Amino acid sequence: MTEKLSESGRETLLAPLYETGWELDAEKDVLKKTFKFADFTEAFAFMTRAALWAEKWDHHPDWSNGYNKVTVRLTTHDVGGVTALDAKLARKMDQILT
Amino acid sequence: MTEKLSESGRETLLAPLYETGWELDAEKDVLKKTFKFADFTEAFAFMTRAALWAEKWDHHPDWSNGYNKVTVRLTTHDVGGVTALDAKLARKMDQILT
Repeated sequence: MTEKLSESGRETLLAPLYETGWELDAEKDVLKKTFKFADFTEAFAFMTRAALWAEKWDHHPDWSNGYNKVTVRLTTHDVGGVTALDAKLARKMDQILT
Repeated sequence: MTEKLSESGRETLLAPLYETGWELDAEKDVLKKTFKFADFTEAFAFMTRAALWAEKWDHHPDWSNGYNKVTVRLTTHDVGGVTALDAKLARKMDQILT
């Protein structure tokens, strides 16, 4: 979980995320997505649910919020790039919305 | 509450905030402060409490979080600058920590 994803790992784990709107900042090796909601209460409710998973997995997002938007950046600082744990948290964030 | 602060209003309302670590980005007319906590749970607990006040007052911060840090930017987009409502929310955020 804590090794930078290999090329094949990226194809397996990241390709499905690209289809739900995640993008890879290749230079920084960071997964990024902006979620939009109806209003602040929905945006913050999403953050709260995601925060519980992040803490449970001891893997925390860099994220920002302005009213109904939440921009998430996921990377594993310890290894300087995207790992399976980032993909797992990204998937969970998508699942929260379904 | 929704008019840009006058010069005298700034002296009255913002001067005390500067003493607690708030800074004014004069060009953008945005109040900014970075709060640091022991860990993610404390940082997110702060955000949660602040979020309730923000929603109650229908005045929401632009803020970002990475692990134990929360950077807050306050301005009133409707009037393009800092208002008494921004100062009120800034004071509340400080109070949450005391």
